[in-house]
This record gives sequence, structure tokens and C-alpha cells, in this order.
Amino acid sequence: MHILATKALHTTEDFPKIGKSAKMFWREEKEAKMKAVLKKEEMVGFTIEDVAVPEVGDDEILVKVEVASICGTDVHIYEWNNWAQHRIKPPLIVGHEFAGRVVERGKEVKRVKIGDFVSAETHIYCNQCDMCLINHREVCRNLRILGVDINGAFAEYVKIPERVAWINPPEIPSRYASIQEPLGNAVDTVLAEDISGKTVLVTGAGPIGLLAIGVARVCGATKIIASDLSNYHLEIAKLMGADVAVNPREQNLREVVLNETHGLGVDVALEMSGAKSALNDCLTLTKYLGRVSLLGLFDDNVEINLTDDVIFKKLRIYGITGRRIFETWQIVSDLLRSGRLNVAPVITHTFKMEEIEKGIQLMKDHKSGKILLYP
Amino acid sequence: MHILATKALHTTEDFPKIGKSAKMFWREEKEAKMKAVLKKEEMVGFTIEDVAVPEVGDDEILVKVEVASICGTDVHIYEWNNWAQHRIKPPLIVGHEFAGRVVERGKEVKRVKIGDFVSAETHIYCNQCDMCLINHREVCRNLRILGVDINGAFAEYVKIPERVAWINPPEIPSRYASIQEPLGNAVDTVLAEDISGKTVLVTGAGPIGLLAIGVARVCGATKIIASDLSNYHLEIAKLMGADVAVNPREQNLREVVLNETHGLGVDVALEMSGAKSALNDCLTLTKYLGRVSLLGLFDDNVEINLTDDVIFKKLRIYGITGRRIFETWQIVSDLLRSGRLNVAPVITHTFKMEEIEKGIQLMKDHKSGKILLYP
Amino acid sequence: MHILATKALHTTEDFPKIGKSAKMFWREEKEAKMKAVLKKEEMVGFTIEDVAVPEVGDDEILVKVEVASICGTDVHIYEWNNWAQHRIKPPLIVGHEFAGRVVERGKEVKRVKIGDFVSAETHIYCNQCDMCLINHREVCRNLRILGVDINGAFAEYVKIPERVAWINPPEIPSRYASIQEPLGNAVDTVLAEDISGKTVLVTGAGPIGLLAIGVARVCGATKIIASDLSNYHLEIAKLMGADVAVNPREQNLREVVLNETHGLGVDVALEMSGAKSALNDCLTLTKYLGRVSLLGLFDDNVEINLTDDVIFKKLRIYGITGRRIFETWQIVSDLLRSGRLNVAPVITHTFKMEEIEKGIQLMKDHKSGKILLYP
Amino acid sequence: MHILATKALHTTEDFPKIGKSAKMFWREEKEAKMKAVLKKEEMVGFTIEDVAVPEVGDDEILVKVEVASICGTDVHIYEWNNWAQHRIKPPLIVGHEFAGRVVERGKEVKRVKIGDFVSAETHIYCNQCDMCLINHREVCRNLRILGVDINGAFAEYVKIPERVAWINPPEIPSRYASIQEPLGNAVDTVLAEDISGKTVLVTGAGPIGLLAIGVARVCGATKIIASDLSNYHLEIAKLMGADVAVNPREQNLREVVLNETHGLGVDVALEMSGAKSALNDCLTLTKYLGRVSLLGLFDDNVEINLTDDVIFKKLRIYGITGRRIFETWQIVSDLLRSGRLNVAPVITHTFKMEEIEKGIQLMKDHKSGKILLYP
Repeated sequence: MHILATKALHTTEDFPKIGKSAKMFWREEKEAKMKAVLKKEEMVGFTIEDVAVPEVGDDEILVKVEVASICGTDVHIYEWNNWAQHRIKPPLIVGHEFAGRVVERGKEVKRVKIGDFVSAETHIYCNQCDMCLINHREVCRNLRILGVDINGAFAEYVKIPERVAWINPPEIPSRYASIQEPLGNAVDTVLAEDISGKTVLVTGAGPIGLLAIGVARVCGATKIIASDLSNYHLEIAKLMGADVAVNPREQNLREVVLNETHGLGVDVALEMSGAKSALNDCLTLTKYLGRVSLLGLFDDNVEINLTDDVIFKKLRIYGITGRRIFETWQIVSDLLRSGRLNVAPVITHTFKMEEIEKGIQLMKDHKSGKILLYP
Repeated sequence: MHILATKALHTTEDFPKIGKSAKMFWREEKEAKMKAVLKKEEMVGFTIEDVAVPEVGDDEILVKVEVASICGTDVHIYEWNNWAQHRIKPPLIVGHEFAGRVVERGKEVKRVKIGDFVSAETHIYCNQCDMCLINHREVCRNLRILGVDINGAFAEYVKIPERVAWINPPEIPSRYASIQEPLGNAVDTVLAEDISGKTVLVTGAGPIGLLAIGVARVCGATKIIASDLSNYHLEIAKLMGADVAVNPREQNLREVVLNETHGLGVDVALEMSGAKSALNDCLTLTKYLGRVSLLGLFDDNVEINLTDDVIFKKLRIYGITGRRIFETWQIVSDLLRSGRLNVAPVITHTFKMEEIEKGIQLMKDHKSGKILLYP
Repeated sequence: MHILATKALHTTEDFPKIGKSAKMFWREEKEAKMKAVLKKEEMVGFTIEDVAVPEVGDDEILVKVEVASICGTDVHIYEWNNWAQHRIKPPLIVGHEFAGRVVERGKEVKRVKIGDFVSAETHIYCNQCDMCLINHREVCRNLRILGVDINGAFAEYVKIPERVAWINPPEIPSRYASIQEPLGNAVDTVLAEDISGKTVLVTGAGPIGLLAIGVARVCGATKIIASDLSNYHLEIAKLMGADVAVNPREQNLREVVLNETHGLGVDVALEMSGAKSALNDCLTLTKYLGRVSLLGLFDDNVEINLTDDVIFKKLRIYGITGRRIFETWQIVSDLLRSGRLNVAPVITHTFKMEEIEKGIQLMKDHKSGKILLYP
Repeated sequence: MHILATKALHTTEDFPKIGKSAKMFWREEKEAKMKAVLKKEEMVGFTIEDVAVPEVGDDEILVKVEVASICGTDVHIYEWNNWAQHRIKPPLIVGHEFAGRVVERGKEVKRVKIGDFVSAETHIYCNQCDMCLINHREVCRNLRILGVDINGAFAEYVKIPERVAWINPPEIPSRYASIQEPLGNAVDTVLAEDISGKTVLVTGAGPIGLLAIGVARVCGATKIIASDLSNYHLEIAKLMGADVAVNPREQNLREVVLNETHGLGVDVALEMSGAKSALNDCLTLTKYLGRVSLLGLFDDNVEINLTDDVIFKKLRIYGITGRRIFETWQIVSDLLRSGRLNVAPVITHTFKMEEIEKGIQLMKDHKSGKILLYP
């Protein structure tokens, strides 16, 4: 990596002093290179390689990555599963969860300053479609995803359009700032409706499920029951605030839920696993008038007893995807900087970015929470 | 019918004068009889028979039925379908939609007066379970249904607990008052969220679907597309305010919807048919962020592509059953008495109560809207 | 007190054995007396006196009071202020916050059983007006208040209509069960909208304000700033979860709020004091799009800069009174039995019921939180 | 006006053909002039003058105005009232309601094309403050208003930032497209909560009040009572759908409202006048649990009986300003193009732009609805 580390120290304050020369300095070193995690070929695996530092367009910023984190999507790309084969066009720098400092900005950039400590909304929206115009950019009709459709953040530098940059409050440590993107998923899943005073079932205690447990806990859920097939995950679930953690292979979840809810079922179910049996648990164990949020993605069609499980029970079901831009980010950052929400138990491992395969392996084995990568 | 017609003229005003003697008068004629439509045996069909006028309990009222109306449920009971065989215990007076005058009341009755013009919430709730206590009596855990679990309204007199009596505004003609119960289903389906300014697909233009079209129309839907396999129903749909009426056997519903919505899909879908293909239409033709209300009951499990049709589109799905007691009734009565909502096109036939089989046959043939019965 | 203490031990289980004889036993001792706190004359003060144990009507229950608690309203009645002079008709047994066991029930009573551990919704609603019919009994048009319009709970026994009885979960200690009524005020004030992830200003840290701080804290408020003129109250505010406690006589509240909210103001203001200056603080220190809940009652008209403080800021203002019956009670009980909400710091004193004047004096001096009374 | 009219015919289709040359063509005629309505001096009145056609910045578009309309704000600027003296810096081209064709665009412009038929959100937001980031640009902390803080639309051409351009559906006639901005105020006032099935009081039947009546009418209000001191306005109110129109100087509004609402008061009050007595009417004539939307601006502080009129009645009060960008515009355009909402009665006069003083005078005399101006 050939770019001097001192660059990263540039802040808004010293930028005026450096002025145009800073910009020139970068562009002198045209041959600047950086280490990056690449999906290089249409096959299983990642490659660590030196690639050119991206050049920012007029409305883009360049961010020096301080820390990144691995998402399940990254594992899918590594494994080259069916979805990845249809979506990913190698070569691609993968990764989308990160936090870092802005070191360069295009000439149309207005809001973000050099030195800002930022993370990115990874849904790069068009700002032109009907959904963007009514402020629902999370379902933009022309979405491109960072690290999926365009080069991502598992590298020393990442460039992003200014419009997706979220300036992190300085009180948030960078390791927590990096996981705000999945935390945003969790927040939207939990807070699709008020959770205060409610009993909650969370099916799936992977990283986002664990974060959802934490959010539900600090937002007033009166009882949280977590289910997962991994006892490793269930242990973390308890640390995040689950009152009861159930492995359905070892315990009868239905009995536990009814027992814990005076025979009534839960007020709210959060489906974070994408497993059909878990969906069934959510629909059958949520009580009359309950709410079900669906975040986990299902590989195939699912079969539902709509009449008994949804209509006669008057359930409300919410499909959840992405995060509100930036309403959700505001809540995420506020929860983190307030110290109310402690996400430390979710972060189980830290590696150098080059060691990413260790992290991928742990995730495949369901032996990790969130894994951080340091460039 | 052996009870003197003059009884029905008793009003709150003349009750004090008559006082206890009125009560005695009824009870003297112990042998009082009335004509009723009975499910008499565990087999297809109804029987018209003279039965005893019901005696009211302490918290009950006796209503002289002015007009009743046939519901799809009555057809199921007539046909003795699978559901009916498991639920109905003959002999039973069927029917639950009606309007009439209160002619007698039990001694604990406080709110309702002799002479009041009433209809009934047909969900007879227990007022003791957790759902009742939090004012969601429509999903009472101990629901009994009028004309299903206890004797109903297809008779000259019907007795109901005071707590389910809705006192109709005097401005509402009795023929409209009788269909407030299904109109309440329609209101809850349409207004699960604000419909104003929204485009709407209504799948299923049976009586409740037709009423839903009318409600959506007067509540500000900007475009209403109705689908049904019966052209007879579709003609009424247009009279109720549908901008476009589609028979999916004759037209490509998908093309029509996309055409009518600038390629975007509808904001809201109301599933009123219980048909799987219609459910599929609702989920695939509702646009991102859309809302789907489910009222139609499905005989079997349904298969859903949750990932693409619900989660990635961020849909909200509402199971709808019953009516809010009495929030929904208040809206229903207000819409009717304001004259804003004209339900006349939905009422297609009128019969004497003894002729109920004619009505049943028309409903089975999908050759009717709402059918009124006069005792 | 002449009624045998053993009566209180009657439970649902032993009632059948005792049967009618229990009832007769009570009625034999017609001369049964109990100690009660009376507003006896139209002047300042209370009187402790032996009065007849109430006889229950057909739809009423008799509760043996285990613990009661003093409300600000009781102080007003004691002081015989302007409001009290117009509302109260002595002689009256005062008091409305309590918890106790059901020892007798009228013959129409169905839901509540002998031995049930109950508290009371103190808004005795008519169940007949338009507000009651649409499930907003908290604003019944014919409200009578326990201990204000009819005899209350500062006595060994209190009778209430069955319909206002809330059966407490057995996990809740009676001293907490007694303060559920004001806790319900707090819950409705805080949760008029979702509080999760929000910054909050609470003006007025009297007992209900303190409870509101606790509720906001467990329901996910990210920062809570409390203001009160009593440093005694502010100390408890911190124990209940306030991050910052400000005495406006000693500190500049505006500066503190802006400082604590990055110059933006709070998302939510809860006005619990009835003081004009506090109202002004709420309106001016709530940020754009904020929410203000008003629970404190103002003696006179208030002056508001609607244009700048409400309209241009797009505030939402909620008038709060009473509690949803029983939605709010359900949340209150669930929060308490979950152990999430610890109300212990609010309860500062405990007296024998005869010593009520000590409690009244402490409240007048702003030297107490909630004060419990034991018969 | 020296720019060839043919320019206005440029459409997206012919733009590629013209390409850069179109741009060059404009810039050749540097001396291009246009007629504009100016606030030229710090005194009463407007001046019609030839001024330079604006040059667009990189993120701006130039629109050839087809029609504009006069807002009350324009009258304030004309009259040079207290507010205007503090806000307006002459010389300024006034006016902000308009519709027209895009004839030029800056090089950063992406969404809007030459030939697009547009109107403008007049709140020019910064896109950088906390309110903009959470999609509430209507309360941007750095708002500049078109025709107030920067040059406006009462001219042959107006330039606006691309981000505030709303592309009108082609089905909407330009005269209606021009009044979408105030119609957006009306929509946000009416639909702050669902209006379907509700009784409504609208105080103030000026142009926005009249539009609010129309919106309430098509969105399902069951009864609309309008009040205004001008009988001229009240006549239009009836045409827009008011069931009852009351001049409080001639009739007792309270009696009328109670009479029309069975003695209960209205469900919803919309304050569109900024008059204290009207505010009082709204607060006292709205029933328990009602909703009050405040759009009218009050010159001074107002006095409110919060305790009786807001708190005990559990009212919800909404301050309304601006329009949601672009959620509200979407609803406005959809209502107009659906034909459901007929705004024709509100448009009472049409003048050449040079005759603007005639329009100003009519508005001062309360002898007009909306007045259109044609360049």
C-alpha cells in the first residue's frame, strides 16, 4: 500500500491549510495501489490482491477504511452460491460494512468533508425513481449494492457516492460504527411497530438476529425468547438480553413460548433466519393481533395457513428490507452513542483483512457473531 | 305468528306506562310461536318451521326482525359443507344479518331501550378474556357466532345479549341497516390503513368485495380495479365505483393493472375471494411499500414467494376478521347516514323469508349481490 | 375494625365450599364497621372514622384493601382548593389508588372471582355513551371518579363495579400494584408515540413524572433530561433513569438541553407539571417534528406562540388523560411483572392509613415521591 | 420577451437532436430579457419590468412559465407588511406557484429533462441538515423560499434547483398544476390522520381552506362544516363539498356544529384562517379524542384553555407547514389526474401577469379564490 498513512489524519480542520495541494498530491501518485479482497473468478473463494486506489467521480468520496465487517452476503459470494452466480460479475472488490475517514471528495460533493468519520448506506439508490422521490430509497427501483454490484469496502480505500455517506457521531468507536448497516436492518425489523411492553420471539440468532435482540431489549420488550439451531449463537443471545434461548432441536419451542407467555403466545415475532420451520413458529406462536416482521430470506416458496394463522388471528406482517435512509441510521447512531445499546457481545472475532478466510470459515460453521476485519 | 303485531310498537316512551304488565303479557302467552329458518338435520337444506319465541335472559334483548340478509356463511350451512359439519349443531335458527325493533329486555339491560332500532354485532364476545379486556372483542377467545353457534335472526324474533346490540341511527333505512355487519368487514378491510389517494385492486366482487369497492371509492381511492370470475358481479362493481372491472378468464389482469398504474402496480390490494390465484395477483401486482388486506378465507394452505413478493417489496399484510366493536359500526353507520356511501347497487334481490331457498340458489349461481329477506 | 380478618383469606378455591354462607355471614353482621379516611366537612382536612362496610350492588365487588397510595388529587381534596370545593360532596371516603383482595361479589358479577388480587381503574365509565362504545372509556361522557365522586379506597374495604376491576398478575407485589393507576398515566404520556431511540425532556418530576422517566428509560429513550423545582425530586429522577436532572432555578434549562442534544432540542417533551414556564420549555426545546405530551393540568389559560413553536416546527401535541381501559393496564402490569421497570425509587414513604396527614404534609412540601398507606 | 417561443417546444424527444447546440443558442443571446413582477423597493407595490433571463447553475433548471398563481404570501409582500419588511430583500422577482416546461438544465442535472412539464416545491431545502437527512425537507433548517428568499416565478422564466422540480403527470392541465403547491398544504392538513368517515370543521375558506374542503370531501369525510367571514368564500366552499357553510357573524357556529353532529362536536377541525376566534372554535367544537390540524399562521400569541379543551378531551394537535417532499406531491398529482378531486370552483379569476395588481386587490377584498396569472 503506497499511500502515506498520514493522509488519513487529514481532518476538516487541516484541509483548508492543505487545500488543493492535498488533491494534487494524490493525483501525482497515479500508480497508488491498495490491498483488496477480490472476487476474481467465477468460482469459490476470494483473492487478496493489490489494486489501484479508486478515483472518485464528481459526486463521490474516497474513504480510508478503518475497520470492516463480514456479512452473510459476503459468505454467499465466497461460496459462489446460486444467487451469487447470477448476480456477481467478477472481478469485484467485496464487502460493504465498514467505517473510515474521508480522504478525498469529488467536486460536486457538498455535505461530506475531508476527515469526516463515515460509514455507508450500502443501498446505492438512484434518487430518480418513484420510490426515491417519496423517500423510500431502501426500495429504489434501480438499487446497486456496494460490494455486490460495484466495488466494495474490503480494501484499504473505498469510494462511495456522497449521497450514501453517513457521518458517524464521533462518540461511536469505529468497530461499532462498522456494524451499523446490519444494526439498521435489526432496528427496522424490531421497530416496524412499537416494541415497548411487548413479548417477543426472535427466530434466528445470527448476527442480525442478535442485534435485534439487543434492540428489542433496550426498547422495552418485556420478554424475549430467542430460537436458533446453534447453541453458540444462543449463548450470545442471552448476553444480548434474551430471557430465554431455545434450540428447537433440544427443546419444544411451542411449549416454551406458551409457558413463558401464560399460554397466550408472543405479541411480536421477528423472523431472522429464512428457515421455513422458523416462519411457521412465528406465525403459530404469535398471539391474536400480533405483529410479525420478516427479514430472513427464503430460498423457495413457503406454505402458509393464511386462514388460521393470519386472518383469524388478525396478524400484521411486515416485509423488511434495507434501512430507511437515513431515518434508521439516525436511530442506530443515537442508540450506539447513548450507550444504551451494548453490541459488544455480538462482535466475537477480529482479523486482519488478509485473514478473511478464517472469518468466512467461522461463519459457515456457525461459530461466530459479527467478525471484524482490519486493513 | 301468534304475538300481536302491536307489541312491536312499544317504544321507550310507552314502556313505563305498560311496565311490568308488558312483560307479563309476553310470558302469559307461553305458547307464543314464530316462523323461523332452521337447520334442522345434519344434511343439506333448511326447514321453515314454527318455533317458540325466545325467552330473554337477564342481560338479553328480544328484537322483532324487520329485515334480514343472507351471508355466504348461511349458504355454507345450507350446503352442509365440511366446515358446517364440524361447527353446526342442529337444530339451529340460522342467519345473523338483520335490523329490527327491540320488544323486550332482561332486567340487567341498561343501554338498550324498548323500541330501539337495532342491528347486532354477530361476534358474541365473552368480555372476560385478554382480547376483550384490551378492546379487541372481534378476536375474543370465546367467540360464539349468532346463527352459527346460537340461534340466529332468520325468524320473526331474535334474542341477543344487550352488549352486541348496535342502535342504528334513525336516518338509515332498515334494508341498509341489515347489511351493516358485512359492510363492517369491508370497512375494516379497506381502512386497515388510509386509502385516500391510493390505487386499489379488489380481488373478489362478491357482496363484501362490492361493499369494499364502495367504501374505497368514497374514501378517496384514486383508481379501483376489481377482478372477479363473474361478469354479473363485475357489472355491479362498476356501479359501486370500480374504474376498471376485469374477468381474469377474459383479460390479462396483470397487463390491465400495470397499464392502469403506469407500470408500477397498485398501492393497495384487498383480497376478498379466498382464491389462491387472486392472492397471487394481490401479492405480485401490489407495488413496493404496498399494503395487502386479507379478508377472503382460504380452504387450504397457500404457497407464497415471501422473499420476492413480500420482503424485497416491503409489503404490509393485514389479516382481517370481524369488525371493531363498535368503532367500525360507528364508521359504517356514519357513512350510511351521511349518504356518501350508496349501497343500493349491492342489494339485488328481496324475498319473503320463507323463500330463502331462492336466494340461496342465486348466491350459489353467483347471480346476486346482497339478498334481503323479510319475515 | 369488626370484620374478621379471616375473610380476606377467602380465595376462589375455598369460595365454593363456603358458598352462600359466606355471603350470609357478611350480611348477618349488618353493623360491620371499618376505619376510613373521610372528607367529612366542607373545609380543610380529613377525618378518620369508623363507617359501615359498603354493601355491594349486583354488578359490584367488595375489595379488602391491602395497600393504598396518595395521589395529588387527594392533597387537593384535603386542602379544599377551588376545584375540590366545586366537585366534592362530603361526606366522602377519599382515595383511589390501591390493591387488595376481592371478598364479596354481586350476583351479576362474572369475570372477577372471590380471592382475586385486584386494583381499580378509577374512571368509572358508563359503558353507554359514544366514547365508551368506541372503546375510549377514559373519556366517558359520564365519568365518575373513585374517591372523588363516589366513596373511595382509603379504608379497610372499598366497593367498585366489576367492570373497573383489573386483576393483577400474582407476580406483582401489592405495593407496586397500588401505583399502577398513576403508572398508567405515565405510560400513556410516554407511549403516545414510540419513544425508542428518542431524546426526551420531562418537565415535572412529581410521582407521575418520575414514573414517566422510568418508563421512557426502559422503553428505549436515548437521553432523558428531567426538570423540577425540587432537588429532592430530581435526585429520585436520576435513580429512575434521568441522564440529566435540572433545577431551572439553579441552571439554564435551555442551555442544558441544547448542550445535551447537539444544539437540536429534544425529540419528545412530556409536560407533567402544569406549570406555564414548563409548558414553554416543552414547546421551545422540542425540535422540529417533535412530539409533546401534555398530562399536567393548568389552572388557567396558557399563552402559546403557535406559529413559531408549533406550526413552523410541525409539532404534534397530545392531550393525555386517564388510561386506556384496559390496554394501558396490560402494559403497566407487563412492565412491572417483567422486572424491566423498577419503580422502587419512586416509593419514598410508608404510613399507616391513620397517619395520612403525615403523607399529605410531605407531599405539600415536595419532600416525597409516592407514599403508601396501609390500613 | 426576447427568447424565441419555439424554445418552449423542446421536449425530451427532440433534445438529443438539438444537443449542445440548444445550450449554446441560449448563451449566445446573453442579453435575453423577460418580463417579471418585481418587488423593487422597500415599499408597497410591485413593478413590472424587463429583467435578464436567469442563467442556470450546474444543478439548476430553467423553466418557461406557462401559468402561475397568486398566494397570500404574495399579497403580504405587495402590502409590505411587518413580516415582509423583515424577510424580503428587494429587488426580488416574486411568486412561487407555477407550472411550465423545462427549457434548459445545468450540467449536474440528471432526473429532469428538457421539455418536462414541471412545478416546483417552493421550499428549497439544503439536503444537508438533520431534517433533510431524515426526509423531512419541509422543515429543513436552512430553507429558502422561492419568490421570497430568491427570485421567483412571476416571470416568463424561472430557474430552480433540479431537486425541487416535480414532474407533473401529463394528464393534469397546467392551470391545475400551478396550484398543486397550496393543494399540498391542504392535503397535509387534511390527511395528517385518516379523514374517512369523520365529521370535519374547516375554519377559514380562503384558497387553501377551499382546497382542504375538496380534499376532505373526496377522502371520505361524512360531514364538512366550513366557517368564514366572507360569504363569497362560503359560496365556493359549498361548491367544493361543504355540507354546511357558516358565517359566524350571521349564525351561531357552535349551535350549528352541535346541531349537525348530534350534539357531539366534530371529529376533526382544520384551522386554515390564523384567526384566534377560529382557533377557539376548533378547540371547543372538536369532540373528545378529536384531531386538530393547524395551518393558519397567528400574528401573535394565542390563549388556550389547555386543561379543558385539549387535555381532558385528549385532543391531538398537528402543526402543519409545507408539504412532504415529494410524498405529498405524489398524492396531490394522483388526486388531480384521477379526476376525483375537482378544483375548478377554487379558480375564480385569470389575468395576464402584468395585471397582477387586479388580482392582489381582489384577494385583499376577499372577493376571489385562486387567481391565475399568464405570462
